[in-house]
Amino acid sequence: MTHALRNGKATQQQTKAHNDSLVLSTIYEVDEISRAAIARRTALSRTSVGEAVAELLERGLVEEIGRGRPSLGKPPILLRFSSEARHLIGVDLSGAEFRGAVVNLRGEVRHELSLPRDGRSGGDALDLVYTLLDRLVAEAEAPLLGLGVGTPGLIDFRSGSPVHWAVNLDWVDVPLRDLLELRYGLPVHVLNDTAAAAMGEYFFGARHATGNLVVIKSEEGLGAGVVLEGRLLHGDHFGAGEIGHLAFTTEGRQCHCGNTGCIETVASASAILRAARAAALADPQSGLHNAARGNLPIDMDDVLAAYEAGDRGIRQVVVEASRALGLAIATVVCTLNVQDVVIAGRVTRLGGALLDIVRHEVLARSLAALARNTRIEFSPISSHITALGAAAVLLHQELAIWPLRRSSTRAHHDGVPDA
Amino acid sequence: MTHALRNGKATQQQTKAHNDSLVLSTIYEVDEISRAAIARRTALSRTSVGEAVAELLERGLVEEIGRGRPSLGKPPILLRFSSEARHLIGVDLSGAEFRGAVVNLRGEVRHELSLPRDGRSGGDALDLVYTLLDRLVAEAEAPLLGLGVGTPGLIDFRSGSPVHWAVNLDWVDVPLRDLLELRYGLPVHVLNDTAAAAMGEYFFGARHATGNLVVIKSEEGLGAGVVLEGRLLHGDHFGAGEIGHLAFTTEGRQCHCGNTGCIETVASASAILRAARAAALADPQSGLHNAARGNLPIDMDDVLAAYEAGDRGIRQVVVEASRALGLAIATVVCTLNVQDVVIAGRVTRLGGALLDIVRHEVLARSLAALARNTRIEFSPISSHITALGAAAVLLHQELAIWPLRRSSTRAHHDGVPDA
Repeated sequence: MTHALRNGKATQQQTKAHNDSLVLSTIYEVDEISRAAIARRTALSRTSVGEAVAELLERGLVEEIGRGRPSLGKPPILLRFSSEARHLIGVDLSGAEFRGAVVNLRGEVRHELSLPRDGRSGGDALDLVYTLLDRLVAEAEAPLLGLGVGTPGLIDFRSGSPVHWAVNLDWVDVPLRDLLELRYGLPVHVLNDTAAAAMGEYFFGARHATGNLVVIKSEEGLGAGVVLEGRLLHGDHFGAGEIGHLAFTTEGRQCHCGNTGCIETVASASAILRAARAAALADPQSGLHNAARGNLPIDMDDVLAAYEAGDRGIRQVVVEASRALGLAIATVVCTLNVQDVVIAGRVTRLGGALLDIVRHEVLARSLAALARNTRIEFSPISSHITALGAAAVLLHQELAIWPLRRSSTRAHHDGVPDA
Repeated sequence: MTHALRNGKATQQQTKAHNDSLVLSTIYEVDEISRAAIARRTALSRTSVGEAVAELLERGLVEEIGRGRPSLGKPPILLRFSSEARHLIGVDLSGAEFRGAVVNLRGEVRHELSLPRDGRSGGDALDLVYTLLDRLVAEAEAPLLGLGVGTPGLIDFRSGSPVHWAVNLDWVDVPLRDLLELRYGLPVHVLNDTAAAAMGEYFFGARHATGNLVVIKSEEGLGAGVVLEGRLLHGDHFGAGEIGHLAFTTEGRQCHCGNTGCIETVASASAILRAARAAALADPQSGLHNAARGNLPIDMDDVLAAYEAGDRGIRQVVVEASRALGLAIATVVCTLNVQDVVIAGRVTRLGGALLDIVRHEVLARSLAALARNTRIEFSPISSHITALGAAAVLLHQELAIWPLRRSSTRAHHDGVPDA
């Protein structure tokens, strides 16, 4: 039984849309492919494939690139996905800078831009978004498919409006999607920044074995983006993946959410930098003591250098943060049992120092049979992951392209229960 | 985009199967309904509905029960689901007793049986399963649709074999489904007992607002059964919902899994009884002191009575367990953000004493915006939940019946992103 049943009958239009999508996703998947090969891969009829391809050629999304080697008879015409046929804009509003990129349909960055937020919120922050998007739109060298926005907060993905908790930006109930659609006349999708990061990794990151993936992003806050069977998990109130606010101790630090001891008060990149500064200030032996005293910037590379130099206070900060991150991942392992867990955000600058402790902690904190089968890695696209993911949402929503490599392209006929 | 796409093209047979399923699920949903009303509800053509109904009548799953009131013209023939057309057997192998029930297609218990396990494991435990099933099969008063089995451990739901961690039963790699199919010549489905409990609540428990549901079962161990969009979440290694083994403290009690501080070492029903016994033994003032000293049985009702009598040691045990259970639920809230969380198992005997602390702890341990929108209740079918759920799997797998009331029966045409 597939998902279609629960949403009602499968209409002919839906069937055609599914099959067209399958054809485009199949072409997207490979470098070049013939119509016959598509038919073999998808089990669609040659007629259906031919019709779908004709439409894609007309829309410019696919091009014919000459003839391949024949197996029998006439050499087949090869098709290729036109990566530059449209451009996408993805923006990341979760950091101290608003970042955005113009990318092609393969997620290759064609232009990028960052604008410091400088504490702007409300209407001022919105104006900065407009400035960022105005400039990015002007840089696009192909027709734009739309705009994708990853923003902090609980986001109603249907209305594209932060419904709660966009605490830094003060955007509760701002109809962000509508405002942007009105201004730019383009399709707009707005989603939580961590959910966007998960889409970024799923579409453009490392290859993962299954359709399930969790991305843990540690930046200003800490959260998880959850992809199950190729779909983002939103949660009944748009709060799936808010594991940064799991309070693992009730005696910990005060969190801006109102509770104490939330994981992100220890394991977010900003919490690490705050704690490192405090530790350096308290310890005249620390290599970062003067920087802390002089109120100079301390970044993650400084923390790593101090850690590697054996700075005791800094070591403790890194160990505590890594253990809390490990607990966050143990939570995901025990709840979702997703094989691929990817860490993203500035915290990845800590490298092996962090990763070793995280992996050890996950083993100590969750069922060993599951922990041993969980791969915990850093994202290869860490710095752009949220903007890329916001762009990937457009691929999915506007073109119905799907990373087929992560799952079967065949129908389930083998009696596997999907209960 | 629906799930069908990711599994490949929608074939005509699949479309027909979906639509037949939708018709049966629609009839299952209501007391009585006409063919025309089915067509209106499902948006299927009258022809498709007529064909599906003819087949269901022939199979005896649906019956005609006379004519209803006409809106215009001839009064329509009303159809009713035949609840007794088949019987189902569900068994629960997770407790100190192996329990089983013969139920009708509505989950109404027609016969039940419990056999004490008395510490049996391996082949002896398997023989006890045979004894249980032999007797239940003999009691069925309608053709059996199949056998459903809820068992502890990580279960490969495809092969129906415990792959790991069926620690009490010592059944690693026992091909349980194959053995039972061979012996009884009936379809058999084997799944984790907590996953079964989630199916039980989803099909036969309280009505829930969405297609998402988490059942937390606290018995010998503690685990979560997770239903997302009407489907059980299994996990990449069949370990989704193993939150009992999240180690919330590394200084806690030793768990049989090898780690220390697992939630179930404090919050499982058996952990509560063990701790209550120890507390009573240590405190001569305790009302349970003599029972503990005399090594007499202490059950959850005894613990509740002592709690209500103000027994200090017992109060502490209950508070600690309730807080740990609250943390388990906070984990689910922060990871999945599922609105309905249902507690099942013997722990529910503690009633309001437990539930108040659990709810308070969830608020303190997770994002308030999510916690406030989470309903935490006891299951109304707590004692039978696992056996009923094992039976429900047959409804789903063998008849493709689906609790439509929990989700829309209409196709998604409203542009809602399902990313």
